[in-house]
Amino acid sequence: MNAKASSETDHLTPQLFIAKKRANDEPHTPAEIAWFIQQFMSGNVKDYQMTAWLMAVCLNGMTPEETAALTEAMVQSGDVMDYSSYKTSLPVVPHKVDKHSTGGVGDKVSLILAPLVASFGLIVPMMAGRGLGHTGGTIDKLESIPGFCTQYSAKEFAELLLTETEDSKGPVGVAIVSPSQNVCPADKRMYALRDVTSTVRSLALQTSSIMSKKIAERPDSLVLDVKFGKGSFQNNVEESIELAKSMIQTGELCGIHTTALITRMDSVLGYTVGNWLEVRECIEIMKMGDYEEVWKKSSDLIEVTLALAGQMLVQGGKAASIKEGVTMAKEHLMNGKAWKKFQDMVEVQGGDLSCINRYPDAMYSSDVYASQSGWVESIDSMEIGLIGVLLGAGRKTTDESVDFSSGMEFHARPGMKVKEGDLLATVYTERAAVLEGAVEQVQSTYTFSVDKPALSSLITHFINKDAVEEFDQSVFVGH
Amino acid sequence: MNAKASSETDHLTPQLFIAKKRANDEPHTPAEIAWFIQQFMSGNVKDYQMTAWLMAVCLNGMTPEETAALTEAMVQSGDVMDYSSYKTSLPVVPHKVDKHSTGGVGDKVSLILAPLVASFGLIVPMMAGRGLGHTGGTIDKLESIPGFCTQYSAKEFAELLLTETEDSKGPVGVAIVSPSQNVCPADKRMYALRDVTSTVRSLALQTSSIMSKKIAERPDSLVLDVKFGKGSFQNNVEESIELAKSMIQTGELCGIHTTALITRMDSVLGYTVGNWLEVRECIEIMKMGDYEEVWKKSSDLIEVTLALAGQMLVQGGKAASIKEGVTMAKEHLMNGKAWKKFQDMVEVQGGDLSCINRYPDAMYSSDVYASQSGWVESIDSMEIGLIGVLLGAGRKTTDESVDFSSGMEFHARPGMKVKEGDLLATVYTERAAVLEGAVEQVQSTYTFSVDKPALSSLITHFINKDAVEEFDQSVFVGH
Repeated sequence: MNAKASSETDHLTPQLFIAKKRANDEPHTPAEIAWFIQQFMSGNVKDYQMTAWLMAVCLNGMTPEETAALTEAMVQSGDVMDYSSYKTSLPVVPHKVDKHSTGGVGDKVSLILAPLVASFGLIVPMMAGRGLGHTGGTIDKLESIPGFCTQYSAKEFAELLLTETEDSKGPVGVAIVSPSQNVCPADKRMYALRDVTSTVRSLALQTSSIMSKKIAERPDSLVLDVKFGKGSFQNNVEESIELAKSMIQTGELCGIHTTALITRMDSVLGYTVGNWLEVRECIEIMKMGDYEEVWKKSSDLIEVTLALAGQMLVQGGKAASIKEGVTMAKEHLMNGKAWKKFQDMVEVQGGDLSCINRYPDAMYSSDVYASQSGWVESIDSMEIGLIGVLLGAGRKTTDESVDFSSGMEFHARPGMKVKEGDLLATVYTERAAVLEGAVEQVQSTYTFSVDKPALSSLITHFINKDAVEEFDQSVFVGH
Repeated sequence: MNAKASSETDHLTPQLFIAKKRANDEPHTPAEIAWFIQQFMSGNVKDYQMTAWLMAVCLNGMTPEETAALTEAMVQSGDVMDYSSYKTSLPVVPHKVDKHSTGGVGDKVSLILAPLVASFGLIVPMMAGRGLGHTGGTIDKLESIPGFCTQYSAKEFAELLLTETEDSKGPVGVAIVSPSQNVCPADKRMYALRDVTSTVRSLALQTSSIMSKKIAERPDSLVLDVKFGKGSFQNNVEESIELAKSMIQTGELCGIHTTALITRMDSVLGYTVGNWLEVRECIEIMKMGDYEEVWKKSSDLIEVTLALAGQMLVQGGKAASIKEGVTMAKEHLMNGKAWKKFQDMVEVQGGDLSCINRYPDAMYSSDVYASQSGWVESIDSMEIGLIGVLLGAGRKTTDESVDFSSGMEFHARPGMKVKEGDLLATVYTERAAVLEGAVEQVQSTYTFSVDKPALSSLITHFINKDAVEEFDQSVFVGH
C-alpha cells in the first residue's frame, strides 16, 4: 500500500468501514476496500463483520469504482498470473484473451473455443470452474479425459501456456486449469459466507466474484458470454444486460478490454449433456471437417462458439471485424487447426486421447421415445440440468464427485420433426435405480408444436463499454 | 413451541430466514423469529448469519409485531421472573411496576424512585445496568454502599422482593439487582455482535434489547424515562418520541401496560456525578424532610422523580391521576417513608449504611472557581460524563472497574448567579495525574448568560399507547 492509501486507512476500524456502507452517504475509497479485504484475510476482520458488510452491500449497492476496487482487492489476496519472466520464441508475449460464461446446460463452448482462438497465435489463459446444481463445468468435462490434469499453480499455469510445441514456432498458448486454492482466496472465503447468509444475489458481489478470477489471469482482453433463460442464472435478457454492463465496467476499470455477448439458454446447447459425452461431441465437431454436417448436428453450439471466437480475434488484433473473425474461426474449425491445438493442449496437460474409440460406456443406458408427433419446440434446459445431477453427471454440493460417462444424448433437437415412437434421446448412467425415472423425466422436457417453430437466434446483443447493440446476425451470412 | 409454530418452521433454514428480511416483502412470523433465536442460542445459527440478519433489520426495519416477537424470544432465551410460588402475607402479589431510563449523566432517579414507589405497597422489581461511556449506572452507584449485593438469580430476586419486613405487614417490595448472566442471554450475545458490526443503531433492535430485560422482570406495568439532549443517546425530542412509541408498542404487545415521559438531559441531573456522591445526594434528599430545601438543592432531580413516581402510582392503582400521584409521592419523600424503604432495601441486599458519616473521601480533590461573573445557563452533561470517566467514576469499556469515591459536586447550578472567583464545583478522584486537567475541563463545561436564563421544564411529553401529549406541568402546581 502506498503512503496515501496508508494515511487514508490509518484510523479505519471494521466498525467504521461497515458503518460507511450502512449509511450509504458516500462510496468506499479503493484504499479502504483494499484495507478491509487485507484485514479480513489476516483475521482482523471477523466473519461476522464481513457478513454484516456483505448484507449492507446487497441492500445499498456499490458504485462501479467500488466494485472494481473490491475485484482488484480479491485478486491481490492471492496468486496472480505473471508472464514477464518466461521466454518464448516470440519477441513479446502475444495478446492474451479469455472468455467467461455465466453458465448453462450443455455449455461446452470453451472446449472448442479456447484451442480454436489459440490456433491463431493468441494466448488463452483459461481458469474454469466445476459444475454445480443444474450447470456443468468445463473442468469436470476435461477431467473425463484420462490423465488430463487441471491442478496447477499460477506459476505452472504460465509455464504451460508458454510451452513451445515441437512442431510450431510459438507456444501452445492454451491451457484450461482449475484455479488453485491460492487464486482469489478472499473470494473463496467470501463466497462461502455469502452462500449461507443469503447474500449471493448482488450485482456488485456477483460481478466482483466472477471478474476477480478472470482478472487474476491477467488477460489483455475478455469476452463474456452472459446467458439468460431457463437453464441460466439470469431470468431475462434485461437482467443479463445489467450483469454484462457491470462486468464490462469492472473489467475496463481494472485495465482489461471487456465486451459481452448476450445469449439465450432455453434449450440445451449442442446435442449432449454429460462430461465425457460433451468432450466427445466437441471432438467430433473439431474432426468433422464438413461445415454443413457440423451445422446440422450442433448449429446452436457452433453459432455461439464462432461469434465468441470472432470477437476474440478482433480483440486480439487478428481480425478487423467480428464478421471477418467468424469467417477465420470457421476456417480453423474446419481445416483441423482447432483440433490440432486441442490435441496439443491435452498433451501438455497430461491427457490421453487415444481412448476416444474405446472409452467405456456408462453401465446403464436407455432410449427415450416420443410420446406424440410434432415439431420439437424446445428441450427444457433447467430440467435437463437437474436430470444430469440425478444421473451422476453433476453435483448438488461442491464436495460431491461426478461420473464421467453419465449424461444424455439428444437425437431429436429443437426444429426437428418427429413421429410418435421416434427416438428422442438416450440416457446414460452408472445408477440403475434412477434410469427409469430419468427416461420419463427426459421425455417430459420436450415440448412439441403443430407448426414448424420459428427458432430465434441464440445471440441477442453485443455490448462493450460504450454501447448495448442488437447482435448483428449478418456475421453468419454466407456460412 | 406449539404444533402450529413447529409446522411453520419445519422447512425454515437460516438462509431462508435471512432472505425473507433481505427481500422485505413480508414480515417474519413470531414463530419464525422464535425459531431463529432458539437456533442461534443452540449454535445452529452462526454469528455470521446473525450479523447478516441484523444488518438487514437495520436497513429494512421491523414491524411492531416483529419487534415484540424478537423481544419475547430474547426473554425466553433465559431466566424469567416468576412470582407465583412465593407466599406473602398478602392475598395476592401486589401490582409490579418498574421504570426504565435510556440513560443520562447524574441520573440517580432510580435510587429514590424505586423505594419511594415501593413505600406505597407496590412491587418494584428493578434490574438495572452499569455505567458505560459518559453515562453512569445504578448498579455501580449502589455497589458503592459497603456490602450491597447486586448479583442474584431470578429465583433469588423474586425471594428478595417478597421478603417480609419485620416491622411491616407486607414484603419489602423493592430490590435493585444486576441482571444475571442468564437473563436474556440472546440479547447479550446479539448486543456483543451489534457492537462490532455497526448495527447498534436500529429502532427495532434498540427497542427489543431494552425491553427484553424489562419484560424478563414480568412487571404488570412499566414507565419509561426517554431522555434527549446532550448527555443522552437521543439527539432530539423527535427521536426520543419515536423510541418511546416503539418501546410502548412492544411493551403493550407483550402484555405490559407501558407509558413514557420524555425528559431533557442537557445539564447534569442533581448536584453530583459519581457513584458514592450520588448515593449520598439521594440519601440527603430522602432524609431532609424539608421540601423547599430539597427543591432548592435538586429541583431537576425531584421534578423527574416525582413525575415518574406519580405515573407509577397511577398504573399501580394507588392514585387516580398523575397529579394525585405526584402529591402522594412528595408526601412519602418528605415524611421518611421512602427513606425507610430505601434502608430496608439496602439491608435486605446486604448493604451497610452505617458508613454514611465516615465514608472515605477520594484521595485527591480540588475546587473549581468561576472564571467570569453571570448567570449559570447550563453545565454540559456530555462533557461532565466524559470527565467522570477520566476521574475514575465511569468506564470506557465494560471490563473496566470504577472508583466509588471519584466524581464531581456542583455548587453552582443552572439558574444560579455567580461572581468571578466564586466556587462552582469540587472535583474528587483517586488519580492525582488527572486532577488539574479535570478542574480546567469542568470550568469549561459551564456556560453563563448576562440575563437570568429561562430554564425549561425537564419533562416535555407524556406518551401512552393511544397518544403523545405535551406533559401537563400543572401536576407540580401547589408544590
